[in-house]
Amino acid sequence: MHIPEIIAKKRDGGALTAAEITFFVDGYTTGAVPDYQAAALLMAIYLQGMDGAETATLTAAMAGSGQQLDLSDLPHALDKHSTGGVGDKTSLIVVPILAAAGVPVCKMSGRGLGHTGGTLDKLEAISGLSVALSPEQMLAQVHSVGACLAGQTETLAPADKKLYALRDATATVACLPLIVSSILSKKLAGGAPSFLFDVKVGSGALMKTQADALALAEALVAGSIANGRRATALVTDMSQSLGRTIGNALEVNEALELLENPASAEPRLLELCLRLSAEGISLAQGSSVEAGREQAETVLKSGAARDKFLAIIAAQGGNLAQCLPEAPIVVPVTAPIAGTIQAMETQALGELVVRLGGGRATKEAHIDPAVGLVLQVTVGQRVEAGQVLAFVHARAPEAVEQAIAATLAAILITPAPREAPSLIHQIVKIRV
Amino acid sequence: MHIPEIIAKKRDGGALTAAEITFFVDGYTTGAVPDYQAAALLMAIYLQGMDGAETATLTAAMAGSGQQLDLSDLPHALDKHSTGGVGDKTSLIVVPILAAAGVPVCKMSGRGLGHTGGTLDKLEAISGLSVALSPEQMLAQVHSVGACLAGQTETLAPADKKLYALRDATATVACLPLIVSSILSKKLAGGAPSFLFDVKVGSGALMKTQADALALAEALVAGSIANGRRATALVTDMSQSLGRTIGNALEVNEALELLENPASAEPRLLELCLRLSAEGISLAQGSSVEAGREQAETVLKSGAARDKFLAIIAAQGGNLAQCLPEAPIVVPVTAPIAGTIQAMETQALGELVVRLGGGRATKEAHIDPAVGLVLQVTVGQRVEAGQVLAFVHARAPEAVEQAIAATLAAILITPAPREAPSLIHQIVKIRV
Repeated sequence: MHIPEIIAKKRDGGALTAAEITFFVDGYTTGAVPDYQAAALLMAIYLQGMDGAETATLTAAMAGSGQQLDLSDLPHALDKHSTGGVGDKTSLIVVPILAAAGVPVCKMSGRGLGHTGGTLDKLEAISGLSVALSPEQMLAQVHSVGACLAGQTETLAPADKKLYALRDATATVACLPLIVSSILSKKLAGGAPSFLFDVKVGSGALMKTQADALALAEALVAGSIANGRRATALVTDMSQSLGRTIGNALEVNEALELLENPASAEPRLLELCLRLSAEGISLAQGSSVEAGREQAETVLKSGAARDKFLAIIAAQGGNLAQCLPEAPIVVPVTAPIAGTIQAMETQALGELVVRLGGGRATKEAHIDPAVGLVLQVTVGQRVEAGQVLAFVHARAPEAVEQAIAATLAAILITPAPREAPSLIHQIVKIRV
Repeated sequence: MHIPEIIAKKRDGGALTAAEITFFVDGYTTGAVPDYQAAALLMAIYLQGMDGAETATLTAAMAGSGQQLDLSDLPHALDKHSTGGVGDKTSLIVVPILAAAGVPVCKMSGRGLGHTGGTLDKLEAISGLSVALSPEQMLAQVHSVGACLAGQTETLAPADKKLYALRDATATVACLPLIVSSILSKKLAGGAPSFLFDVKVGSGALMKTQADALALAEALVAGSIANGRRATALVTDMSQSLGRTIGNALEVNEALELLENPASAEPRLLELCLRLSAEGISLAQGSSVEAGREQAETVLKSGAARDKFLAIIAAQGGNLAQCLPEAPIVVPVTAPIAGTIQAMETQALGELVVRLGGGRATKEAHIDPAVGLVLQVTVGQRVEAGQVLAFVHARAPEAVEQAIAATLAAILITPAPREAPSLIHQIVKIRV
């Protein structure tokens, strides 16, 4: 088998065989296939596409490129993945709810990059907490506590790590089969029998249109099934930030408060967490979604979910007795005119928090966990002139002015009325 | 300017600006742009194309990536290029004719690779002859003798050398704008004001269809004009080997014999050389093609072209007093049945000579100048059973049987009559 022939076949629109795809992934992982041949193939895939069978094979080959966790003694375990958004702290809430409801969750998360945050960065706002768990530590914690929230190990799907960096440098990121195989290969290697996907759509998401988001949701579920796993995908709204907070410590705090006192939580965030939990419990346990919803509400009300989150934090060395970091400067951003919140440029909100120091513009950048934004309004809400739209939490005085201007630029207020956007757009599930 | 944005623009079908193309070529030449980004861009160009303006800019940028010869004191100089074929020894004949007719030719040639031969390999069959001329030596020889037949210097169009190797490894060879820029960048850097292109079409050529060959011919002429040069391109037949011989010393000998005694030459080879020479003289001197033809016939008949070839060989250290190498084994291949030669698998004929040792399967392979094939028939010719079709010239006895079988497999004989294929399909010229 020769790589140029494989490239030529895809270049001409052909479907690659399982043997060809595996030959490529194995060779690329070991270094036998150089970056430049992989780059040519990625561009050919970008422009000519891959069918479902090719995508499933590519995913399996990437999952097989490194270590794979064995969760076979946890048949009801579940893994959750969000495609990433702004203010998306659902994992911090849903994982404890699931674990409290008896669904084991061995969750490996990523770090924030660009305008989206990452669960690992949020967790590290907690003093002492470690996300660097070995596969053995993860499995032990899932058995003892019911869940872990860990970083991806270096040995998991190394082909994805190499390919992702190459895609970033060769303008081949926004390609459905490559996105699907990247997300799903890591989930497959994580070993869970069931996957819950939260595909974000809107101004703060990778997918800007509902059609693109639905295509990704369907491809993720189809690819899971093709690889012998069960899956449910929800297409959910990212046309505004999720919950009230953006910024690492602020988001941990919002999650803790929701688990402590759900009645005071931001209603859209609470509802999304309950919907995700209901679908997750139903998927993992084979029960109805209604039964799953009831379980989720029960463990939330009883405080069992809060206790589970505290247990996860404690198991990973986190110390909540020490306060979460707080920014020294908190300034309000007020509405310049009366009207209705028409839209939020959610990506711009994420980017302004990065500029405050709360995210990283490059992979190596240091994060300030204290800074961020606390929103006081949602899309569709009526506001008066001078009403507080948000609070900027900043460390450096010189960063405040730009943050206020960016917040105002990102929140569109007009006189026309506006309905609140729907929270859940679609749910994709195929059970086998 | 960022390379991923340039890649994305071409990926989405956009036309690149001159600044973007030059940024890429300059960066790739210096190594600032890595192979993998170049590979992604090449595949995007392969699948999305490039318009004439982009191709002309790419060509100019590649020509400008290294040294450029200054032939400004030779306003009637001409450069000739063949896209490569089997048995194509026209440069050995046409260059002396042109020089004898007063058209200076500073010609840099390539080596054979794959099934096609290379002018440099043929010349090196002559004892003592050197093709390794410095730019200064080339110019001096063109001034003193009227022509040189030299190897491409390392400093000429280095971007092409890097890109060509990358295209070979990434299945992006057969792409018109990339073929055009590769051929034409070297010609531009060679400095001649006029170019004569011989675009081969048929079973032994890079271009297998007349439409593809015509498109290449037109693109070469258009690209030349866009870069301020004059050009003529002929689309000529490569559905059978050119002349009687395939193999380095055999082809030098056939060229010498044609120049010595044109009346005994293989008629198609003679006619092609006269047509190319007529177009070349006409282009370089601004005369009519008829006048060019007359000049070409005159210098051929008078022996002036032969003397010019001997002078070129002598100037480059060649010693014809020492016989050309001859193969120790010469065996006939005879027709198994009577009939008409319907077709030749010309590429297969070229490949069998490579296997005899007369070409190189890899860039590093050593060449045996003595071996080859001497054809006794042409397409459309009637043959009797047992009639000699060709002579195999071999060094190793164990290679003979396979060579005979390959020759028979490559020459199709059937009872049906067949007209000889036309020699010149199209001539493309646009004068400015």
